[in-house]
Amino acid sequence: MKQLILIRHGESEWNKLNLFTGWTDVDLTEAGRKEAYEAGLLLKKEGFRPQMCYTSYLKRAVRTLNQVLEAMDMDYLPVEKSWRLNEKSYGAIQGLNKADTAKKYGDDQVLLWRRSFDVQPPALDLHDERSPRMDPRYAELSDSEIPLTESLKDTIARLMPYYKDVILKAFDRYNSVMVVAHGNSLRGIVKELRDMTNEEIIKFNIPTAVPYIFEFNDQMQLQKHYFLGDPEEIRKKMESVANQAKKK
Amino acid sequence: MKQLILIRHGESEWNKLNLFTGWTDVDLTEAGRKEAYEAGLLLKKEGFRPQMCYTSYLKRAVRTLNQVLEAMDMDYLPVEKSWRLNEKSYGAIQGLNKADTAKKYGDDQVLLWRRSFDVQPPALDLHDERSPRMDPRYAELSDSEIPLTESLKDTIARLMPYYKDVILKAFDRYNSVMVVAHGNSLRGIVKELRDMTNEEIIKFNIPTAVPYIFEFNDQMQLQKHYFLGDPEEIRKKMESVANQAKKK
Repeated sequence: MKQLILIRHGESEWNKLNLFTGWTDVDLTEAGRKEAYEAGLLLKKEGFRPQMCYTSYLKRAVRTLNQVLEAMDMDYLPVEKSWRLNEKSYGAIQGLNKADTAKKYGDDQVLLWRRSFDVQPPALDLHDERSPRMDPRYAELSDSEIPLTESLKDTIARLMPYYKDVILKAFDRYNSVMVVAHGNSLRGIVKELRDMTNEEIIKFNIPTAVPYIFEFNDQMQLQKHYFLGDPEEIRKKMESVANQAKKK
Repeated sequence: MKQLILIRHGESEWNKLNLFTGWTDVDLTEAGRKEAYEAGLLLKKEGFRPQMCYTSYLKRAVRTLNQVLEAMDMDYLPVEKSWRLNEKSYGAIQGLNKADTAKKYGDDQVLLWRRSFDVQPPALDLHDERSPRMDPRYAELSDSEIPLTESLKDTIARLMPYYKDVILKAFDRYNSVMVVAHGNSLRGIVKELRDMTNEEIIKFNIPTAVPYIFEFNDQMQLQKHYFLGDPEEIRKKMESVANQAKKK
């Protein structure tokens, strides 16, 4: 039996402030760290023993993973970080308040940027101070790889090579692999694994800091998938994420 | 210019309790986390920008590194963990109180186990519950690689292949590399870099959570080395480590 554990990072400071985040490197809130730690305690209690971990270049994901590993008492696990697991880029609306943006561009336009499959928000200029080109951590990326804005489709397109060539390949060596990332990069993995349509994946909200378990047979055929934890709490978390999308 | 940053982990819970630690996986104290975070703030303030990090399989080192990276706001850096950077194994005296051990075996014997270059403490049984063989994180090690006890000489011998083949090789790609490890594994690196005798390295005490900087020219010849921080504070920290060695 093979097993993939997906975890979306805990609450971030900009979730709380209702700002578009994307590639902006914001920290977890105290509540976000706590829910991450609790996810680790739950995994440990339920006997999960991942052997390899992947996360993004963004600290809200890295710190969520650190909290999970501390709680599991498995700090020694190998961790690989990749920009391809980063959140969807929100381009030039990153850092803007969601309510203000809706006032300026209209509710319908903002809804398209946030919840359509293939509509991109306005792009950053390559030399905007918010552009990844201005951040040394992305020096390895060619200009054509640097996302100045992304639709969910674009996010999935740059994620897939890493998912297929690195994360899935890890199962040649390991039985249990853990990925700690973001709402939209995880959507890409879930869409692929569950063979969901574009419309289905857009409506699918992954709750924060809830381990999402995928089990495979030795031929890597999906056998089952489930969220780990109390169903009532998970339902509340999913609703809260869905409502956040509606919040102005 | 090339640069190697060495950091010894912050105060651990067993430092405080005066127990032999070695490969026992004990946590940092709050003070230990704080001094680690402060080391990161200092590195950031002084403009250090490491590109690659190495640490051990022991949580007091991993968590020190996590604190340093948080403080530097560089959580995205690649990190590789290796058992070869672990602390010296204290064998069968791991977990024993230093004062009790001195009473039982005599001060001179304990001093030899702690501060000689090539005398090993009594060995663990391979199937002792404290043996690395009983810990899944060391499953990759052959029985002959598993240290059941170590002298400083043994620690350095198992460290050197990793230091030479991995850490030094990283300078082919990176200009600045950071290693967060333990008093005795770092002694191995310092002895090699400074070409110290066995007697010199035994007497050399590396203070906890003080960045120890080695600068090289492009041919990797050592140009200078120094501890980063306030000289008076560093002197106090070195004395405290030296006194700890004498404490009963």
